[in-house]
Amino acid sequence: MKAAILSVGTELLFGQITNTNTVYLSQQMNIMGFDVMYHYTVGDNPGRVEDMINLAFEDCDLILTTGGLGPTQDDLTKEVACKVMDDRLVMMEDVLEEIVKYFKTLGREMTENNKKQAVMPSRATVFHNDAGTAPGFALEKNGKYIICMPGPPREMTRMFQKSVLPFLQAMSEDVIYYRVARMFGIGESMLETKLLDLIDHQTDPTLATYAKEGECSLRVASKRHTAQEAKEAVDEVMKTVNERLGEYIYSFDDEELVQVVCKKLMDKGLTISSAESCTGGLFAKSVTDIPGISKCFDRGIVTYSNRAKMEGLGVKEETLEKYGAVSEKTALEMAEGLKRLSGSDICISVTGIAGPGGGTEEKPVGLVYIGFIYGDVELCKKVQMRNVNRKWNRHYALLSMLDVINKNI
Amino acid sequence: MKAAILSVGTELLFGQITNTNTVYLSQQMNIMGFDVMYHYTVGDNPGRVEDMINLAFEDCDLILTTGGLGPTQDDLTKEVACKVMDDRLVMMEDVLEEIVKYFKTLGREMTENNKKQAVMPSRATVFHNDAGTAPGFALEKNGKYIICMPGPPREMTRMFQKSVLPFLQAMSEDVIYYRVARMFGIGESMLETKLLDLIDHQTDPTLATYAKEGECSLRVASKRHTAQEAKEAVDEVMKTVNERLGEYIYSFDDEELVQVVCKKLMDKGLTISSAESCTGGLFAKSVTDIPGISKCFDRGIVTYSNRAKMEGLGVKEETLEKYGAVSEKTALEMAEGLKRLSGSDICISVTGIAGPGGGTEEKPVGLVYIGFIYGDVELCKKVQMRNVNRKWNRHYALLSMLDVINKNI
Repeated sequence: MKAAILSVGTELLFGQITNTNTVYLSQQMNIMGFDVMYHYTVGDNPGRVEDMINLAFEDCDLILTTGGLGPTQDDLTKEVACKVMDDRLVMMEDVLEEIVKYFKTLGREMTENNKKQAVMPSRATVFHNDAGTAPGFALEKNGKYIICMPGPPREMTRMFQKSVLPFLQAMSEDVIYYRVARMFGIGESMLETKLLDLIDHQTDPTLATYAKEGECSLRVASKRHTAQEAKEAVDEVMKTVNERLGEYIYSFDDEELVQVVCKKLMDKGLTISSAESCTGGLFAKSVTDIPGISKCFDRGIVTYSNRAKMEGLGVKEETLEKYGAVSEKTALEMAEGLKRLSGSDICISVTGIAGPGGGTEEKPVGLVYIGFIYGDVELCKKVQMRNVNRKWNRHYALLSMLDVINKNI
Repeated sequence: MKAAILSVGTELLFGQITNTNTVYLSQQMNIMGFDVMYHYTVGDNPGRVEDMINLAFEDCDLILTTGGLGPTQDDLTKEVACKVMDDRLVMMEDVLEEIVKYFKTLGREMTENNKKQAVMPSRATVFHNDAGTAPGFALEKNGKYIICMPGPPREMTRMFQKSVLPFLQAMSEDVIYYRVARMFGIGESMLETKLLDLIDHQTDPTLATYAKEGECSLRVASKRHTAQEAKEAVDEVMKTVNERLGEYIYSFDDEELVQVVCKKLMDKGLTISSAESCTGGLFAKSVTDIPGISKCFDRGIVTYSNRAKMEGLGVKEETLEKYGAVSEKTALEMAEGLKRLSGSDICISVTGIAGPGGGTEEKPVGLVYIGFIYGDVELCKKVQMRNVNRKWNRHYALLSMLDVINKNI
């Protein structure tokens, strides 16, 4: 089925916000097998919203709209959709009750204009909003569908997952199931090469590869008559994928590497400390992004200067002079010093050249050494990454550290 | 003049990439006084690209397109634009020479299909691409303009700044000048209230406020016959803004607070170290994002556990017991311990509750203490922020730390 996505909101035309709703909906719709043909954005202007809906229906059978469902005067998507679909607006008492309840829970007073949000097209399938007040809805006429959702991404994505997705799935006789494998240490072109036979002859399940900041992911999706069939089809392909690429895969559930590592640490009840040079605290920051990690993360030391490496971690002056700050020996002494200080189960260190300056022929920008101590294991991993820019290099160093931990605990 | 932005690329419809080009162009066009009426996105399909151009011209006099200018078979924007504007394609030898030169510089072989990129509509004003091979162009017919640019954001933004912007400015008799003041410590509604008289009666210069993750900014723009006149008009308004809001403003040139602080540190040749608890390394990470800061940043210590605070920074056990880890006394002892260890000119510490857990009635999530030592100054700043979520709270704590440094050095 051909679909269009219509975003309503003058703030989008001013460039005040990035349209992430459209990205999210496009991904979700494509996974479900819809052909997304157009994205449109218009301001809060009923005439232009109506024109766009009519235009989209010339070519598509389904329109998803976001925005323009709020309580204020310029929120007019509902009125326009109702008009185009030849319906009339009625007050829905059960919807009103929910909105009243929502305001009570927040302890806020409900203003008169909020009642407007309980007025709905009479034939609408109403979608509850559990992150805000404006409900969404679906409306059908002669086999054409319009689905209207609120604009704030948090409200829209929750409503999509909870209500719109099942509604769309019910429109089809088939069920979609998919999994996303995430990988580190392999490039997208190599990934494609390794799976070329599967990608070239794909019908169902479909395989799609994505590259993202030093990582790759692979989505395997199947559309079958039953959830069980779809799951089995995906699992079978994933089994082959795992046989060929298992060493690179860190998640089959589309998780971030830092989430995978932190979950492991929490599950195993391990403590960890970090000593960073080139990443400048990025490792500590990323790990402490995860709620609950305070049980595991003891301390992080960012020794940017050589003096700090000696004073703060006990790296030997001779080591820095003989091998340099960016060396296997320094990385190991950083980890060893950290172990003495913290006694954490896992001690990880990193030293390298993030750029743009500081590189030499012998030690180019992008060279990184990672020291790691856990139980009897003490190792140093050397990584020479492609020098993209400071930000990317630091990010890749972080992923490399997480990868070392993930593979060794 | 009414304008539309048309993005061409099937990858956008798949949701594989976020359309940042449209945000950028919308901002730029609005600053220049164009009314952006529509955003459209279509796949690499000549028929649909043509339909969209014709549709946009019904209402608009200017269309900006991005994407579909590359060397491959599915890049067809140029051909379609040429057809709609009743022109014919010709090989432009000077453009070809530039492409040949580009490949030579990179040391890469030029394939035959790259020659296609030197074929241009005969009446086109060609825009050089100095970050890639596909040139852009502008084409006019009966007072309607189409401007085609490449899709990769880096190529597009450079071309826009260097060639398209002057082209658009030349279409107008007027010149645009603007400045962006950035502020911390004031909300958008308070900002508006303080400038209400200026905002309500604005004609030229225009004032626009934006809120972004705990910060606010104000853009003042003027469109006059000469650059000098526009600059003077903006400067005069900014003078008033500074009189009313100077205490909150950290940049008049749209810089990030971390950039402003790091520049100050580098200019003054000051050394700095940090001791972090709740921000978990975010401060160290953000400061070391800035190239060249290694001259100033000595070390960062992330003491997440109480033990680490005692062992790593010499915070007293009695202090932690009596006042708790999140207290003025602990923040100051962290900064003092750091000063003893590092001897850095500036020592800054932070301890607080980032959430989602860990808050109490007395010490709710979002409470943060910042310790600061510089020369004779030793102070502690208490910040009770609105609890949004862990990520936002940590970000706001970072901004508060940077603000303390900025105001005290």
